[in-house]
Amino acid sequence: MIYLTRRERFSAAHRMFRRDWSDEKNKEVFGKCSNPNWHGHNYELFVTVKGELSEDHGFVMNISALKQIILDKIIQRIDHKNINLEVDFMEGKIATTENLAIAIWDQLKPLVEKEGAMLHCVRIDETENNSIEYYG
Amino acid sequence: MIYLTRRERFSAAHRMFRRDWSDEKNKEVFGKCSNPNWHGHNYELFVTVKGELSEDHGFVMNISALKQIILDKIIQRIDHKNINLEVDFMEGKIATTENLAIAIWDQLKPLVEKEGAMLHCVRIDETENNSIEYYG
Amino acid sequence: MIYLTRRERFSAAHRMFRRDWSDEKNKEVFGKCSNPNWHGHNYELFVTVKGELSEDHGFVMNISALKQIILDKIIQRIDHKNINLEVDFMEGKIATTENLAIAIWDQLKPLVEKEGAMLHCVRIDETENNSIEYYG
Amino acid sequence: MIYLTRRERFSAAHRMFRRDWSDEKNKEVFGKCSNPNWHGHNYELFVTVKGELSEDHGFVMNISALKQIILDKIIQRIDHKNINLEVDFMEGKIATTENLAIAIWDQLKPLVEKEGAMLHCVRIDETENNSIEYYG
Amino acid sequence: MIYLTRRERFSAAHRMFRRDWSDEKNKEVFGKCSNPNWHGHNYELFVTVKGELSEDHGFVMNISALKQIILDKIIQRIDHKNINLEVDFMEGKIATTENLAIAIWDQLKPLVEKEGAMLHCVRIDETENNSIEYYG
Amino acid sequence: MIYLTRRERFSAAHRMFRRDWSDEKNKEVFGKCSNPNWHGHNYELFVTVKGELSEDHGFVMNISALKQIILDKIIQRIDHKNINLEVDFMEGKIATTENLAIAIWDQLKPLVEKEGAMLHCVRIDETENNSIEYYG
Repeated sequence: MIYLTRRERFSAAHRMFRRDWSDEKNKEVFGKCSNPNWHGHNYELFVTVKGELSEDHGFVMNISALKQIILDKIIQRIDHKNINLEVDFMEGKIATTENLAIAIWDQLKPLVEKEGAMLHCVRIDETENNSIEYYG
Repeated sequence: MIYLTRRERFSAAHRMFRRDWSDEKNKEVFGKCSNPNWHGHNYELFVTVKGELSEDHGFVMNISALKQIILDKIIQRIDHKNINLEVDFMEGKIATTENLAIAIWDQLKPLVEKEGAMLHCVRIDETENNSIEYYG
Repeated sequence: MIYLTRRERFSAAHRMFRRDWSDEKNKEVFGKCSNPNWHGHNYELFVTVKGELSEDHGFVMNISALKQIILDKIIQRIDHKNINLEVDFMEGKIATTENLAIAIWDQLKPLVEKEGAMLHCVRIDETENNSIEYYG
Repeated sequence: MIYLTRRERFSAAHRMFRRDWSDEKNKEVFGKCSNPNWHGHNYELFVTVKGELSEDHGFVMNISALKQIILDKIIQRIDHKNINLEVDFMEGKIATTENLAIAIWDQLKPLVEKEGAMLHCVRIDETENNSIEYYG
Repeated sequence: MIYLTRRERFSAAHRMFRRDWSDEKNKEVFGKCSNPNWHGHNYELFVTVKGELSEDHGFVMNISALKQIILDKIIQRIDHKNINLEVDFMEGKIATTENLAIAIWDQLKPLVEKEGAMLHCVRIDETENNSIEYYG
Repeated sequence: MIYLTRRERFSAAHRMFRRDWSDEKNKEVFGKCSNPNWHGHNYELFVTVKGELSEDHGFVMNISALKQIILDKIIQRIDHKNINLEVDFMEGKIATTENLAIAIWDQLKPLVEKEGAMLHCVRIDETENNSIEYYG
C-alpha cells in the first residue's frame, strides 16, 4: 500500500453562523468568524489517495489525473467564491472547515475510486495554525 | 543603520471593483477577483523599520512596541473583516493589495516615528505567489 | 471522526544530560546538545484532537477553546523559559523532545476530554529537520 | 510508543519511462516527466522511526545515528546524481517517487532495526504539491 | 513607486561545466554540480516589477498579465527540461543560477515594459539555502 | 552586479540584559527576553554577497567557499552555544539580534573580500515573525 498526496490551493470568503440563531448567539459560539460582512482565507487542500502499486507504470494513481479531479470537482467551484453563498456542495451546511472537509471527501471519493485508487484523507489548512483532517 | 522586520497576519474578505464600472468591465479588468459575493485571503504583513542602534539597549526599536502598534492600528481593524466595507482607512479606495500597502504605510508612519525609528517598507503577501512592497 | 490540529510556538532553552553521569558520558551520548551553558530552539507544537462532529455548530471542538488550553497549560509555562530549570511538568526528566511530548500530552489530555473531544496526537518540531510525535 | 522523524534533502535528475515502450507511449503515460533529456527536483525525505522510550537517555533512537544512516545509505548515493543511471538501489525500476520510497525503505529498515527501533514511514516530497508515503 | 512580485516554479535538470575544460578541472571548480549524468532542482522564480500606481485600477501592473508573461516566456520553455540542452536562451552559457537569472531578465524586460511597468528584480531560489538576485 | 545569498542555521541560548541594570530595569526594557535562566532560538542566518560575474565560471563567488566561510567563522562558534557566555565575538555586547547581525558582518567581511566579492547584507531571522538586516 502506497499513499500519494496532492496539494491544491483556493482563496474563498466564508462566515460561520446559523440562520436559526440570533446574531448574539452566533457571535458567542463562532466569535469573530461569524462576522456578517464575511472574511476569508487562503485554504490549502491536501488530498491523499492510497492503493497498490501498478507494476505497469509504478504509480498508485496518475498524479495528473488526481490533480485534474481536484481542479474540476473542487477548485473550480470554490476558488475566489463565497463558500456560504456560491458552493453548491456546501448548501445547508455551516461553513466550518470540518464540514468543508467532509463535503470535499464526498465529492472526490467516487472519482478517485473510478481511477482504481482509494481516497484516504482530506486535509484542509485554514491558516498556518489551524488544520482539519477527515478519513471517511 | 539597522533594519527590523515584524510579521503579523490577518484574514479578511475583499473584492476588487469600481462602482462606476459595469459588472462586465469589472470582470474584464479584475477577473475572478471582482466576484460580487467576495472572496478572501490570509494576508501576511511585514513591517520594516530602520534606525541607528541605541547603545542603551542594542535595539533599533523595541519589537514589542512595533508589534503593539501593528496590532492596534492595523490587525485589530482588519482581521476577520471585509476590507471594502469595514476598514475605515480603505474607504473610497479600490481594495487592491497595492492600495492596502499604501494605506497601512500611512497609518503606521507617524507612530513608528514617534518611537524614534523610520518606517522603511510595508510588504503584504496576499498568497504564496503574490506580494506587494511599498517604500513610501 | 474528525481531526483538528492547532499549532502554537514557544522559544526555550534546554540541555540534555543526566546528573548521575559524568560530563564525558553526557557528551558522548548527547553530543553538543549536552552543552552545560545551554542552547535553545523555536519549538513548534501541534496538538491534534479528534471526535464526532457536533451538529449544533459543526465543530469537533471549538478551536478557540483548544488554543486557550494550550496557551494556559503549556505556552505560558514554557515560552522564554529554561526547560530543565523552570518547567514544573518536566521536573526530574531528561529534557529530550520525546519526554517533552509525553509531558505535554499528560498536561492536555484531561482538559481536552473535559471539552468532549479526545486527544489524538502531540507533535513537536524542534528544528525544521527533527520532529517527535506521541499518540498516548 | 514514540515516533521520531528526521528530514534530509537531495537534488537529483530523473526521467519516468519504460524501455520496452515507445516514446509516444511513454509520453502518453508519463507526460512531461518522460522527457528523454531528463529533469530534476529538490527532494525532501522524511524518515520516521518508532519505538519504546529508553529510560536510559529518553530517546527512541539517537537522532544523530538516524541522520548518519540516512546520509550514508541514501543521500551520499543519490544527491546530485541521476536516479535512473547512477543509483544502484533503483536499478531496473521505473524512477517514480513511489518506487523510490519503497527502495529507500528497503535500504533503511535493517539499519534502523539494528539500532533497536522500528522503521515506521518513508515520505518523499517531490515538489511542494506532490508527496508519497510508504509504511512497509 | 510600488513593487509587485510574482512567484512561479519550475523543475529542471542541469549540469555546471565548461566544454573547454577537462572533467578534472570541471570537478575541481564546480564540484558535484558538474556530474556528467546531470542532477536537478525545483527552482523558485520571483519576478519583481515596479511602477506608479494606476488610479484607474489601483495596480502597478495586472498580476494576471505578469503571470502570463512569465509562464509563456520562461516556464513553458524550461519546466521539466534540461537547462543545458533544451533552453534556447541559455545556449552557450554555463548553466549557473547567476547566468540563468540574467538570461531570464533579458527575456522578461521588454514584455514587462510593454505593459507599462519596469522590471526591478529577478530572484531564483535553487534550493532552500541558495538564492540569486539580479537587478539589471 | 549579481547578488548571491546563502542560508545557514544555528540553535543557541541567549538572554538580553545589562549587568549595570537591576533585574527590574532589565525586565522592564527586555521583557521575557531577559529571563536570567536563558531561553533560545533556531536562528536562520542569510548572508548576501555581491559582485561582477566571473566569465570564467559564471559565479559571483563559489557558493561552496561562501558556505565554508560561514560554517567556519560563525556556525561552528555559535551553534548549540550560549551567545552571552560562549561566543567570543559577542563579548561585552548586549545579545540582541541587532548586535549579533553587526558582529557577524564584522566577522565575515574580510573573508568575503579575500574571495573577490563584497559583503552586501547579513540577515537574521530570530523567529518566523522577527527579523534583522544589516548592510554595513
